[in-house]
Amino acid sequence: MSLLTVGSVAFDALETPFGKTDKIIGGAATYITLSASYFTKKNNLVAVVGGDFPQEMVDLLIEHGVNTEGLKTIPDGKTFFWSGRYHEDMNTRDTLETQLNVMADFDPVIPESYQTTEYLMLGNTVPATQKAVIERMVKRPKLIMLDTMNLWMNIAMDDLKDVLTLVDVLTINDEEARQLSGDYSLRKAAQTIMAMGPKTLIIKKGEHGALLFQGDRIFFAPALPLEVVFDPTGAGDCFAGGFIGYLAKTDDISFENMKRAIIYGSAMASFCVEKFGTERVVNLTQEEIDARVQEFVKLSSFEIV
Amino acid sequence: MSLLTVGSVAFDALETPFGKTDKIIGGAATYITLSASYFTKKNNLVAVVGGDFPQEMVDLLIEHGVNTEGLKTIPDGKTFFWSGRYHEDMNTRDTLETQLNVMADFDPVIPESYQTTEYLMLGNTVPATQKAVIERMVKRPKLIMLDTMNLWMNIAMDDLKDVLTLVDVLTINDEEARQLSGDYSLRKAAQTIMAMGPKTLIIKKGEHGALLFQGDRIFFAPALPLEVVFDPTGAGDCFAGGFIGYLAKTDDISFENMKRAIIYGSAMASFCVEKFGTERVVNLTQEEIDARVQEFVKLSSFEIV
Repeated sequence: MSLLTVGSVAFDALETPFGKTDKIIGGAATYITLSASYFTKKNNLVAVVGGDFPQEMVDLLIEHGVNTEGLKTIPDGKTFFWSGRYHEDMNTRDTLETQLNVMADFDPVIPESYQTTEYLMLGNTVPATQKAVIERMVKRPKLIMLDTMNLWMNIAMDDLKDVLTLVDVLTINDEEARQLSGDYSLRKAAQTIMAMGPKTLIIKKGEHGALLFQGDRIFFAPALPLEVVFDPTGAGDCFAGGFIGYLAKTDDISFENMKRAIIYGSAMASFCVEKFGTERVVNLTQEEIDARVQEFVKLSSFEIV
Repeated sequence: MSLLTVGSVAFDALETPFGKTDKIIGGAATYITLSASYFTKKNNLVAVVGGDFPQEMVDLLIEHGVNTEGLKTIPDGKTFFWSGRYHEDMNTRDTLETQLNVMADFDPVIPESYQTTEYLMLGNTVPATQKAVIERMVKRPKLIMLDTMNLWMNIAMDDLKDVLTLVDVLTINDEEARQLSGDYSLRKAAQTIMAMGPKTLIIKKGEHGALLFQGDRIFFAPALPLEVVFDPTGAGDCFAGGFIGYLAKTDDISFENMKRAIIYGSAMASFCVEKFGTERVVNLTQEEIDARVQEFVKLSSFEIV
């Protein structure tokens, strides 16, 4: 089945304890589509970049089977830019600079050829923009998944709650789940948030794994303990891309299949952090992904006798 | 098989966001033996209390099948006392008061009848005391497990490293693993720590579960997401008691069986936090434990197709 991803395509400049980069390709939609490209070949992108965005980066997406018909270039605009510095623990970071540039007026246009897309992934961006995308789909996709962050809870909570009534799956981290719900217990938080709209909730806990909630059902997916976390940028987006990419590939949105999708998403995230930026996720083989998934199986399987 | 637990039997006074207690029974060895009592009936205790320790609390242990021959009472001494206050997040706490009392001169004597014990659990206490226990066992137990804490890393690191060369299983939390090893990555930390002696390492991560390391093998056990954590006191000890109690019951120290033991330990810890102090772990049925273990199975099982 086909996937439509809407979100940012950007330049990032990163500093980690292991080194720093110049401007490299980044953005939620970039990581999501690259990650999903290992699962579905019908991989539609809607995003906006400036005239400074190099053609070879567009080509990189195309090489990965991403349909860039919906990637709009504003010739006299500049591409969204973010720079950040990770702390020693790699779990916290400071934003050094954010230039919204062409993202400030991002008005997503859905190409005619995208209108029959079955799976819709709304990358982290302005909630009102996410809502506009849903409204512009002539036919409601089979599954709509949304990622967001604490920023929107601080400055656009009403808009966020509004779009949440329209989505099937929400993915946020544990801190955001607590902020959105006002509950400390993640189990309670999940019930509060699912009552806001999404029937399925994924709470990401970084190195501590992820929780999948749906009704009364809970699934806990481990994170792979890694020797080195080189750069956490994009891990959450690779996770989301792997998750929804796997659902689109299998076209099965049962809870059992979502459990598998979370494992594939976790595997993609575990690759992502091994190198700077998109370096690792642009160079993966199916064999590597399958082997990594088997590591997750070994990591978490046990048998009660 | 039989289990010998050496450690503190104490009074605790606790404050949590849900309320506060007067002096209630606590101490590492108390929680460990109570938890283990659901798995093994040969449950030997070595500890020391003062003349202020009420007989009904000793009777409570005896009712749970704990052999208290090694529980020494110093009539003119006072029982170890700890009081603490948990913060809103329930993950951090302040120690309000510590009175070592009779624990200050704790010199563990191993009764003759305990000398054939196959499984030895050294609860968190002075590393030199833990070492003395091992030296006083005429025959080396089949498995020696040790719990410790950051305090001993700060004030008795050499003694701790000394006793670590003698044990089979070490259990510590993630922060302590990082402190002991000097490595941030838990995967690296585990290798560093296992090189210090223990062939098996359990890293406890509280609400984020636990990791079991042995050689190149890793197992990740989830924690059950709970509606309410009422009082975390003793959770780590109930975990240890369930783990080693299960090993003693089954007398199987293979990695596969240790994975099961971790799940039983996690189940015991999940009960412990539901009420104040030992209230929940003194009132469990086998059916409740089995049902809780099945919740862990449901929580973490998936199938890759």
